[in-house]
Amino acid sequence: MQGVFIVFEGGDGVGKSTQIQMLAKALKRKGYKILLTREPGGTSIGEKLRLILKREPMCPLAELLIFEASRAELVETRILPHLRKGGIVLSDRFQDSSVVYQGIVRGIGVDRVKLANQLATSNLTPHRSILLDPKDKRFSARLRSRRKTKDRFEREQNAFHSRVEAAFRKIAKKNPRYRIYQAERPRQEIHNLILRDLEKLIRARR
Amino acid sequence: MQGVFIVFEGGDGVGKSTQIQMLAKALKRKGYKILLTREPGGTSIGEKLRLILKREPMCPLAELLIFEASRAELVETRILPHLRKGGIVLSDRFQDSSVVYQGIVRGIGVDRVKLANQLATSNLTPHRSILLDPKDKRFSARLRSRRKTKDRFEREQNAFHSRVEAAFRKIAKKNPRYRIYQAERPRQEIHNLILRDLEKLIRARR
Repeated sequence: MQGVFIVFEGGDGVGKSTQIQMLAKALKRKGYKILLTREPGGTSIGEKLRLILKREPMCPLAELLIFEASRAELVETRILPHLRKGGIVLSDRFQDSSVVYQGIVRGIGVDRVKLANQLATSNLTPHRSILLDPKDKRFSARLRSRRKTKDRFEREQNAFHSRVEAAFRKIAKKNPRYRIYQAERPRQEIHNLILRDLEKLIRARR
Repeated sequence: MQGVFIVFEGGDGVGKSTQIQMLAKALKRKGYKILLTREPGGTSIGEKLRLILKREPMCPLAELLIFEASRAELVETRILPHLRKGGIVLSDRFQDSSVVYQGIVRGIGVDRVKLANQLATSNLTPHRSILLDPKDKRFSARLRSRRKTKDRFEREQNAFHSRVEAAFRKIAKKNPRYRIYQAERPRQEIHNLILRDLEKLIRARR
C-alpha cells in the first residue's frame, strides 16, 4: 500500500480550506487514513513560525527561509511518516506557494526558491496538485474582504493577489501533476470533480 | 572607505563574548564605527527565531533553515548597510557555525549547509574569522557548567561539544581567512594578539 500526497494551491480567498474540509470528510467516509495539514504550520514549530510570518515584516529571503523551515519540519515529522504508513496527506499549500509568493511576486527568483524547496523537502513532490483558479479577480477579492482580521499577506493590495493568481495559473498549466478548477463554480460541483479525479489516482497507486 | 566584516567562531564556553566586548571597546576608542551582532539573532525577527531555536526540539533541517532565515535578515538589514557605510561589523558566529553544528555534528552534510549559507547570505564572506580553540576540552566544559540557565545547545553532552571544537579546528586550519587563538591563554593576551592582527587588516582594506 502506498501513500498519496495531495496539495491544494492558489491565492487567498479562492476556497481552498472549504474544499479540503469537504474532501477530507468524503475520503474518511470511504475509510482512508487522512492527515490534514497546512503551510506554514502543521507542527508545533511550524505554528510558531506561522505567527512570525503572518505578523512581522521581514526581508523576502528571511520570509522564504522561515517557510522552508516550517516545510522541513512538516515533511520530516508528519507527511513522510503518514505516507510511509500508506495514508493520504491533504495539505493546504506546499512548495509551489513559495515559488509563487517568494520566487515570483517578492522577486527572489524561481531558481533560488526551487533550490530551497529541494533542500527543505529532499525532493518530495505531491502526487496531485489542485489549483482553484478564479476567472474573475473580483471573486477572491470579495472573499478576502469578508475576513475580519487580516494577516500581512491578506492585507496586500489587489494587484498583489492578481499577480499571485496569474503565477499559479502559469505553473499549473505547464505541470501534468496539476488539475485546475474554476473557483467560481458551485462548491459541491468542484468537490465532485476533485473527488472523482482523486479516486482514480488513489486506485492507480494501490 | 571599505567596511570590514569580522566573525568570532568556536564552541560554547570558549570566551567569544568576552573577546568581542573587549575588541569592540578597543576599536571604538580608536574611532571606528562598530556594529556588534550575534547569531542567531541581531534583528527583531532574528531574536524571535533565537528563542524558538534555543527552546524547542525540531528536526536538523528545520534547525538549519531557521538559522539561515535569521542570517538572511541580519545580512540584509544590518550587516550590509553597515559595511556599505565603511563600518566594522563584529559578529558572534556566522556561516561556519552552521557548517559545524548542523552540517557536521547534526549530520545534514557540509555541501547542503554551504548551499543554504550561499542562499541566505548571497555569498557574503567574513574578511577575518577568529577561532577561540581550547587545547583541553575540560576548559570549555568548566565555563559551560558555570552557567545557571542552559539552552538546548548548552545542555548537550561533552562529547557533542568536543565534536564541535574539533570540527571548527579543521575548518580554521584549512582556511586562510582564519586566525586561531588558544582559548586558555589570558584574556588580555588573546585580546592584544587579535587587535594587532585586525589593525593590520583594517589598514590594508582602507
